[in-house]
Amino acid sequence: MQVRLPKRTFAEALGMLERIIPARASNPALTHLRFEVAEGGLRLQGSNGELDLELVVPAEVEGEAVRLVPGQLIGQVVRNLPGELVELGLEEGQLTIESGSFTTRLTTADPAEFPPLAFEAETVVRLPARELGRALARVRYAASGEDYRAIFRGVQLELHPTRLRSVASDGFRLALYDLELALDAERKFVVPARSVDEIVRVLERTEGEVALGLLGGHLTLAAEGFRMAAALMEGEFPDYERVIPPEFALEAEIDAAALKDSLKRVKVLADRNNHRVDLVFEGGRLEVVAEGDYGRGVERLEVDARGEAQMVLAYNAEYLEGALGPIAGKARLRFSGAASPSVIQDAEDGGYLAVVVPLRV
Amino acid sequence: MQVRLPKRTFAEALGMLERIIPARASNPALTHLRFEVAEGGLRLQGSNGELDLELVVPAEVEGEAVRLVPGQLIGQVVRNLPGELVELGLEEGQLTIESGSFTTRLTTADPAEFPPLAFEAETVVRLPARELGRALARVRYAASGEDYRAIFRGVQLELHPTRLRSVASDGFRLALYDLELALDAERKFVVPARSVDEIVRVLERTEGEVALGLLGGHLTLAAEGFRMAAALMEGEFPDYERVIPPEFALEAEIDAAALKDSLKRVKVLADRNNHRVDLVFEGGRLEVVAEGDYGRGVERLEVDARGEAQMVLAYNAEYLEGALGPIAGKARLRFSGAASPSVIQDAEDGGYLAVVVPLRV
Repeated sequence: MQVRLPKRTFAEALGMLERIIPARASNPALTHLRFEVAEGGLRLQGSNGELDLELVVPAEVEGEAVRLVPGQLIGQVVRNLPGELVELGLEEGQLTIESGSFTTRLTTADPAEFPPLAFEAETVVRLPARELGRALARVRYAASGEDYRAIFRGVQLELHPTRLRSVASDGFRLALYDLELALDAERKFVVPARSVDEIVRVLERTEGEVALGLLGGHLTLAAEGFRMAAALMEGEFPDYERVIPPEFALEAEIDAAALKDSLKRVKVLADRNNHRVDLVFEGGRLEVVAEGDYGRGVERLEVDARGEAQMVLAYNAEYLEGALGPIAGKARLRFSGAASPSVIQDAEDGGYLAVVVPLRV
Repeated sequence: MQVRLPKRTFAEALGMLERIIPARASNPALTHLRFEVAEGGLRLQGSNGELDLELVVPAEVEGEAVRLVPGQLIGQVVRNLPGELVELGLEEGQLTIESGSFTTRLTTADPAEFPPLAFEAETVVRLPARELGRALARVRYAASGEDYRAIFRGVQLELHPTRLRSVASDGFRLALYDLELALDAERKFVVPARSVDEIVRVLERTEGEVALGLLGGHLTLAAEGFRMAAALMEGEFPDYERVIPPEFALEAEIDAAALKDSLKRVKVLADRNNHRVDLVFEGGRLEVVAEGDYGRGVERLEVDARGEAQMVLAYNAEYLEGALGPIAGKARLRFSGAASPSVIQDAEDGGYLAVVVPLRV
């Protein structure tokens, strides 16, 4: 077989696969990339056992071949090649890579060792790839990084007849994003947050629609040039809607960037253990305040507030910053009191909603 | 007291001091910055017990004050300030920092707790600050990061009547840089590599001359706007000149960047333990070759070689890359054989010389 393709296209695809292919694995085949010369291009597959990715890269090809090549290594080799063009061949079971003055021979392995990947589910819905990516990306931050409640290490996707919802939580905060879409489906499933990160990365570069499917505990995604399959987590989120207060005593609108900047400044003075910052509303004004062993920081901000004249709310600064993170313009803050969950919304994008539980002080 | 100064100047000075002031120290005063309102500006001092730094920052000042302020914290506060201008004051022993809508009060401590700094040596020589910085920066990489022979964790500075030399080594490689200068001195001393890094950083931003002094086991450096004092290491380097072979069987000139790029590509295939790459000279041609568990990489390079027609030399790729690091244009490579130290020089800057010991294979 012989293959010619631009270094850049090849390196980009290998870069995506490298993020998934593990450097070490109990099944050594998983540390390999499945390399297939197919009609019109290269079909590259990698898996970490939890997430499978297949990319099809256009190339000039002659002949056929299927081999396993060391996954981390081939990416490093191709990125560093001196020329713009790469030529691949197979000689005595070794993959040859030539570019400019440089030649490599890589050992390959039998493709029969590679585990079957789970791409074959039937399509449940089709939706715009980038919008799905955005819905996942906006809530991802709220997922738990810790083990204490396994389900919270994932992002829940809900398919409803008229909308798609993504939800993440760690028990102290919650983020959800609603995308209005006619889906003709009613399903809920939880994707591990680590897999969500890679799915977002692939969806961001995808034009047009992506087809979602569900089969045997896997979510599949397919579009022009790629297929993915993510093992789902077992179970679903507890009823999170009941933590969102139905009524609010104080509502405020504020420039999200100004509040984020202020939190960044003020939190430097905060207590090192709980990162406490206070939002002090009084007579239509807002002060952001923190106080710790080394002193006190205060900033006064412009705010448009309605409702109760006075309220003091204490938060872990990082939770508040996280909730504001996906908001580019104005944020709408809604408070029921110092002991009730607070709601943060994007005033210009009704799909986003975050809940942050104030510190008990 | 009252002080007004641009945020940027203040943040830059604090950034330099923050790199030295430790976050934790058995003497808590060392975690503080000594803050003095002096005529025409702020005098800021910090120390980690091994390296002392004083920066004088121009500012509009009224009154006088000397206090200790938490060193890491004030840098973080000032960097994040919202305005272009900073106003400082002292209220009931607390330092107030105001900028735009933001106000901080930082606790301060008694300056009597601060250790005396070692800036007071008499000048031994004066020399161009940036050139000294370059001489140190070019050899720094060769210093040892490990404990096995303490003196090699430093950079030796040698003052000779007609030149300044900087030398670093870890026992397997050596780098030296000669700067032709009439110094009227004959001294050798070893500065810890960690301190060298900070000295280089300060010298890079210094115009004109720097005055070097020696007193009581310290090197002092002084110029417009700063003073530094670095505790010296005890002892001096063993006689390193005897490892530099006086004669060579093969000499080659090559573009340093081309050889570095090639090493970067080829070493991906190298044995993971010894990072071995071979330079294979044959009939005026050079091949860079590596071979490991996953395959083999070869690159052919243009080279201008004189002397023995054939020679194969094996190196740890990273040592070779390190030695080539400071060379921007052509490198001159000089070999005595596979078992003798090799010499790498900058063909366009006679001051730089590196010695790399080949792998025993």
